[in-house]
Amino acid sequence: MKLYDFLPSGNGYKVRLLLSQLGIDYELTELDILNGETQTDAFLSLNPNGKIPTLVLNGGEVLTESNAILMYMAEGSDFLPADKLSRARVLEWLFFEQYSHEPNIAVVRFWQTHGGPNDAQQALLPQKMEGGYKALDVMERRLKDHDYLVSGKYTIADICLYAYTHVADEGGFDLSAYPAIGNWMNRVRNQTNHKLITSK
Amino acid sequence: MKLYDFLPSGNGYKVRLLLSQLGIDYELTELDILNGETQTDAFLSLNPNGKIPTLVLNGGEVLTESNAILMYMAEGSDFLPADKLSRARVLEWLFFEQYSHEPNIAVVRFWQTHGGPNDAQQALLPQKMEGGYKALDVMERRLKDHDYLVSGKYTIADICLYAYTHVADEGGFDLSAYPAIGNWMNRVRNQTNHKLITSK
Repeated sequence: MKLYDFLPSGNGYKVRLLLSQLGIDYELTELDILNGETQTDAFLSLNPNGKIPTLVLNGGEVLTESNAILMYMAEGSDFLPADKLSRARVLEWLFFEQYSHEPNIAVVRFWQTHGGPNDAQQALLPQKMEGGYKALDVMERRLKDHDYLVSGKYTIADICLYAYTHVADEGGFDLSAYPAIGNWMNRVRNQTNHKLITSK
Repeated sequence: MKLYDFLPSGNGYKVRLLLSQLGIDYELTELDILNGETQTDAFLSLNPNGKIPTLVLNGGEVLTESNAILMYMAEGSDFLPADKLSRARVLEWLFFEQYSHEPNIAVVRFWQTHGGPNDAQQALLPQKMEGGYKALDVMERRLKDHDYLVSGKYTIADICLYAYTHVADEGGFDLSAYPAIGNWMNRVRNQTNHKLITSK
């Protein structure tokens, strides 16, 4: 299969990590989101929303939205529970990540690692930092007495939340007050076939 | 079951509409999100993220995140396809809604219907409007030659996207340039047991 991705992206990282842990080979096409390479007519015909990661299956079907890709690719594997309630718990974390975590933690990291926030972004920074810490609080509350986010075992919920949490420090988030998150990140890093694949 | 909700919320609306169409009765507890009623210790013990809708099942299990609730409640019904690829398509739209649609269209609507944007919000308004119209463009592109978002039939993807699209005008979004969305909204309104339940 073929993955269109931008290597610094945590959304792309989730998909790369799951594919690695599933033992699935893929062809990587890097697109520079900063230079409009996801806004060309050719790419928009694959993904009208113009975003990476975009995965093209061997049969030619195109999958978009990182967390939808995780759900599709993990189906039937150990990374996605079979029972209905645990699946709902996985989805709760995946939607939490896209609404309450990524727009704060990933966005601030992007600003800080791409020249620093401009004036308009600087005005938003306090509420983004507050939102990010609130998301970390929710994770800490869960992880202080659970090894993993769902069902006592490693799932795509952990892959999803790990993606931007493990680089939250690049956005200026101080994780020292989150010991349960720290211990959980170590457990995630110790999984079979976990690779550091954020950059080449 | 018991639903904690705030009636003007489109995220709550999705759940109310699906439960109505599934013929499931529930007890509604209204919480005023503007007066901190979702930030009390009692409510945070149900949902640590402090958000509505929150659904308590008859067995006492608590479900959060509107789109995770849709997936759980629709399982096994006509509102969620059984085949793996169609389920991925539903999830693509659900994640698209929470990342690219709701944070623009719902947020601007909230500002406009609650006293108008303040100075900081006013500064963000142009990019929120642009983001909202871009999300509508993606929907229009899909709906101009498809009756529904996924699989040629009405699913929770339609329920999810209808929730804030059908009130986008309250945020100042002009839908007159989106005829396919207009026709699709009429098809959604004509579904069995569709009720106007945004307010009491």
